[in-house]
Amino acid sequence: MTYTLHYWQGIPGRGEYIRLALEEAGADYRDQSPDWNAGDPAKPSFAPPFLTDGEVTVGQVAAILFYLGPKLGLVPDDETERLWIHQIQLTIADLVVEAHDSHHPLGPGAYYEDMKEEAKTRAHAFRTSRIPKFLDWFEEVIEKNDAAGGWLAGERLTYADLSLFHTVEGLRHAFPNTMNALEEDYPRVMKLAEEVRARPKIAAYLESERRQPFSNGIFRHYPELDA
Amino acid sequence: MTYTLHYWQGIPGRGEYIRLALEEAGADYRDQSPDWNAGDPAKPSFAPPFLTDGEVTVGQVAAILFYLGPKLGLVPDDETERLWIHQIQLTIADLVVEAHDSHHPLGPGAYYEDMKEEAKTRAHAFRTSRIPKFLDWFEEVIEKNDAAGGWLAGERLTYADLSLFHTVEGLRHAFPNTMNALEEDYPRVMKLAEEVRARPKIAAYLESERRQPFSNGIFRHYPELDA
Repeated sequence: MTYTLHYWQGIPGRGEYIRLALEEAGADYRDQSPDWNAGDPAKPSFAPPFLTDGEVTVGQVAAILFYLGPKLGLVPDDETERLWIHQIQLTIADLVVEAHDSHHPLGPGAYYEDMKEEAKTRAHAFRTSRIPKFLDWFEEVIEKNDAAGGWLAGERLTYADLSLFHTVEGLRHAFPNTMNALEEDYPRVMKLAEEVRARPKIAAYLESERRQPFSNGIFRHYPELDA
Repeated sequence: MTYTLHYWQGIPGRGEYIRLALEEAGADYRDQSPDWNAGDPAKPSFAPPFLTDGEVTVGQVAAILFYLGPKLGLVPDDETERLWIHQIQLTIADLVVEAHDSHHPLGPGAYYEDMKEEAKTRAHAFRTSRIPKFLDWFEEVIEKNDAAGGWLAGERLTYADLSLFHTVEGLRHAFPNTMNALEEDYPRVMKLAEEVRARPKIAAYLESERRQPFSNGIFRHYPELDA
């Protein structure tokens, strides 16, 4: 079975959350620019990424991962646990929107250069208030996980752990000074990120050409926004 | 079985999407301020709304509706259809974030009065570019629904239809001039909204004291943002 991931090429972007799940599972997949004619014509996606899998088409990162999780062995069997992992993923999605808006507070249709001052204000709030609030929550979730294995949910890695890893990577790229100062307060989150990075398939992927560097997508490094 | 919806009292907010589903189904529920000690202590929610149902706790609007949908009879049996309805709901959630940011482009932690000029810029982009893009998509989804009954998915009303109704109501409240000019281009969306409004349980709810008016939540009416 070959999955097709439809997403912009040249940036990690939201597609990266799907790529990491496919890579960890060793799944057979194609990664291509969106083909809007592919998939179920009655189920158009609002925006990439979307995934086609035979007759099935599914868009929205969290929904794609909810669909792929059981197929890729990246969630436990229990339905309540699957919903919890999905809830964590949706919270990561909220963070991703805010990370994007930190450099595009006036909307996605204009240039950063035309909203630099506004971005400084919004990025300041993101760095000082929102990033800590999200990291507090992830740290709490890991701490309260009864399985105590260091993952967000249950005793084994799930797609949400892969997504948290990538989010930490993105925040480090965009806000290195901020993250440098914050990381010691979040030992569980940082340990989880290192555990993900060290997994054999993830490590191989990160060294491959399939892993695209951060550039002008969601997580952008503008030194003036990290001052 | 009594559900408890934990959400801020006094505004429709994101909780309204859950209320409408519970009301349409005639479900027994309590609507109260968030009790952070309720529910599964290992599954803390990042933010309200969250729902407790016996041993189950679930947060994030779209995840709550995904959980409630089958229990309330607001989705069909087919898993692929349920995922599609969830994908539609997640796209509504994206619109909701943008609707909020139209009056709070510099982040949720400051006052509107301190970002009025920036809000004008962002609201202009939202009104002229983003609202039409979302409405185009909802119109297309209804049109492409093979069941041709006027709903977003399948042949019967689902929770996504209830959510689209409330979103149209919110946009009309916040941007009456904009919506006045746009509505004739979206006959399917507007017909769906009227069909929802006319359903007996929804009509009774809308006239009850349980339906709270729009105020200072997601959908806010500032005339200067609708000019």
